[in-house]
Amino acid sequence: MSDLAAIDRYLETHLDDSIAELKRYAAQPSIAAQGRGMGECARLVEAMLARRGFRCEIMPTAGAEVVVAERAGAGERTLLIYNHYDVQPPEPFELWTSPPFEPVVRDGRLFGRGVSDDKGHLTARLLAIDALLAAGDELPCRIKFVVEGEEEIGSVHLPEFVRRQRQRLAADACLWEFGYVDHRDVPLMHAGLRGICYVELSVRTATLDVHSGLGGSIFPNAAWRLTWALATLKDAHERIRIPGFYDAVKPPSPRDRELMAALPDAADEYRERYGLAGFLRGMTGGVALRLAEVFEPTCTICGLTSGYQGAGSKTVLPALASAKVDFRLVPDQTPAEVLRQLRAHLDAAGFPDVAIEFLGGGPPGRTDPDHPFVRLVADTATPVFGMPMQVVPMVGGSGPNHAFIHELGVPVATAGFGYPDTRAHAPDENLRLDLYLKHARHVARLIRAFAAAR
Amino acid sequence: MSDLAAIDRYLETHLDDSIAELKRYAAQPSIAAQGRGMGECARLVEAMLARRGFRCEIMPTAGAEVVVAERAGAGERTLLIYNHYDVQPPEPFELWTSPPFEPVVRDGRLFGRGVSDDKGHLTARLLAIDALLAAGDELPCRIKFVVEGEEEIGSVHLPEFVRRQRQRLAADACLWEFGYVDHRDVPLMHAGLRGICYVELSVRTATLDVHSGLGGSIFPNAAWRLTWALATLKDAHERIRIPGFYDAVKPPSPRDRELMAALPDAADEYRERYGLAGFLRGMTGGVALRLAEVFEPTCTICGLTSGYQGAGSKTVLPALASAKVDFRLVPDQTPAEVLRQLRAHLDAAGFPDVAIEFLGGGPPGRTDPDHPFVRLVADTATPVFGMPMQVVPMVGGSGPNHAFIHELGVPVATAGFGYPDTRAHAPDENLRLDLYLKHARHVARLIRAFAAAR
Repeated sequence: MSDLAAIDRYLETHLDDSIAELKRYAAQPSIAAQGRGMGECARLVEAMLARRGFRCEIMPTAGAEVVVAERAGAGERTLLIYNHYDVQPPEPFELWTSPPFEPVVRDGRLFGRGVSDDKGHLTARLLAIDALLAAGDELPCRIKFVVEGEEEIGSVHLPEFVRRQRQRLAADACLWEFGYVDHRDVPLMHAGLRGICYVELSVRTATLDVHSGLGGSIFPNAAWRLTWALATLKDAHERIRIPGFYDAVKPPSPRDRELMAALPDAADEYRERYGLAGFLRGMTGGVALRLAEVFEPTCTICGLTSGYQGAGSKTVLPALASAKVDFRLVPDQTPAEVLRQLRAHLDAAGFPDVAIEFLGGGPPGRTDPDHPFVRLVADTATPVFGMPMQVVPMVGGSGPNHAFIHELGVPVATAGFGYPDTRAHAPDENLRLDLYLKHARHVARLIRAFAAAR
Repeated sequence: MSDLAAIDRYLETHLDDSIAELKRYAAQPSIAAQGRGMGECARLVEAMLARRGFRCEIMPTAGAEVVVAERAGAGERTLLIYNHYDVQPPEPFELWTSPPFEPVVRDGRLFGRGVSDDKGHLTARLLAIDALLAAGDELPCRIKFVVEGEEEIGSVHLPEFVRRQRQRLAADACLWEFGYVDHRDVPLMHAGLRGICYVELSVRTATLDVHSGLGGSIFPNAAWRLTWALATLKDAHERIRIPGFYDAVKPPSPRDRELMAALPDAADEYRERYGLAGFLRGMTGGVALRLAEVFEPTCTICGLTSGYQGAGSKTVLPALASAKVDFRLVPDQTPAEVLRQLRAHLDAAGFPDVAIEFLGGGPPGRTDPDHPFVRLVADTATPVFGMPMQVVPMVGGSGPNHAFIHELGVPVATAGFGYPDTRAHAPDENLRLDLYLKHARHVARLIRAFAAAR
């Protein structure tokens, strides 16, 4: 039996153990937005890594703790693996088929908050490491982990942490927290991430709510102030109206367009999965939709709150209103500049009363889609998936890859088991067991290939 | 001891009993918007009226039950008294000093949901009736009560009920559910009420919420659709932009202006009580503010709901968004016409996807401010308050007075113990015990004077 056959056999026979480990990990709530269960979860991660012989440390930041771990290997190269132990809030609870923090397998899928984003990616990688350690006495190369607890709230403190721990995190390349297969089960590599600037806008017009019969025609109304202020941010043609917002936007390069054109059309898939009547600005699919999806910045209302929200009617004039808004940023936009532009715009548009609270974010980051590490990660997928990963120069989501690329100077490549119905950030988040196993097989191969390369 | 002195003495010595009765009544939740405790509360009302020798009946409607009661008197005339047993939802609970359904006296005030609007008005009137019955064997005139359970949700079924029960409710005049003193403790009479059209606007853009990193630049967003649709309803200059909305509006008459000009300026009072930086459209007070307050129609956002509303950030693109909106109407606007105009406007403005649900309402109604019954109610206040009630031709709130005026053909006059800090519809709703007693004294006098007049 060859080395690789033994490794694959190990992965298959230990899949159930790995899923059991993931169930324990995902049963521990760790909701960064609500500060719930964070310390407990960091200690679970530490224990899982220590069990594999990693030297671990739980390190403080001004926010959630970061788990850093390291284990030497036979080769001289160092692979840094980035994951996060925090998850999105589980609400709305009533739309979950089973409770979000009681992970359960149904029809070949594991359901639970965080099983896909991102706890399962850590345990699948640990399964690959277990297989490598079972096949030899030591790892093929040095492996470092950095597992943070604020990814879902914009990785507020990670860039500063990476900057300070530059020596400790030094590596030759970085494997990112997640990855996806598309609706054809073709594995995708995402070589860039959009940035994000997440804010809460709020207005207060009075010290208490007022009977709407009294104040309706003469008192300021916080909900109206917020509505009008929001309406100045983006028009119904989806044009963001904040002066200067598009100035720093770099259009996709010819190589970017070439890579995007090689991707399949997901339009029908999206329409069906999300029950959409259509796409914005009359787009119907094709490369235009794909380019818009990832190479354009956004302004998204993520939540609205004001006044009475119960059943039936309550005649109240709200004293307070707020909106959660996220801006997805593309090179070379930065959160700091967007915040400055937003404040200036609201002031100029007559809304100095609308307060802005920055809830987190970071700039976009890209690795050259033709970088040798990107190629290595893509090519080692071939024996597992029957084809190499398809390289996508940019993805719509965000993460702190900017700090890794620019502070540590490493290429960043993604790989993972996400798939179109994985429901990250939504009720019934889940992973497919078959893809979970494939990811472990892929990671085992890429670690070996990475150790051997130079 | 004169009759009146004996009546006043009775009212004073039985005030505590009446407040105890009110506490039991207000401890029974009866939240029409949430359908909570309605049947139980109707039975409490029936029992209170039956205890005074009224012949009672609890009558069904397509919504909440109506309590109708009648007791003959010495005189031939009939006074109809309108009250309601439903209350506003108590939320937000955390802003109440004591629990909303555990009424308690502090510093000469009784606190609890509904004590002012409108349960205390019923018990204060029953206290006056008790005093009249103690002073003589029978009432001075026939008295009828109609106590409904849907006033706080727009009296959806009452107009139809009044129409059908025209004979049973026949009367010579109607005393309305509430009344106020102003910030100088001057009693006010409100001879007209604005109408109301309360709607919920909602948009659905997908079958489930989407990760904002995926859909932000290509998927429709329900919160944006709602924001843009709302922004077309009214501009930041407070002009309602629904075509035809102002067509039926009758400006105030010279007599209306004269009566409004005689009122004191409440601007400073409003500023201080509600912590306002200023009023809409640069108004600072005076008759302009008073006229705007009651003779202009409104479009008020009462509530906004969409997406994530918890702590911190959640990167979600909402599939669903909704707003509660109330329109206050002035003569001769009608809810039916406003609904028609609203639908036509949203369709024309590009928002056929915004659904309208009518949650209740009714047209405005006015009684001639110089009607003899209005004068009688105003003048009988003099011995109690040291001055007659000041007649206000129109008030900003709403109620089903249109049906009484136009179906029963009776004049409608208001009187009550509300005061500027009564916090109707808000946390810490309360009544002042001194004003409660004054209202009972006033009602005893007006019933006697009404019976004697012709």
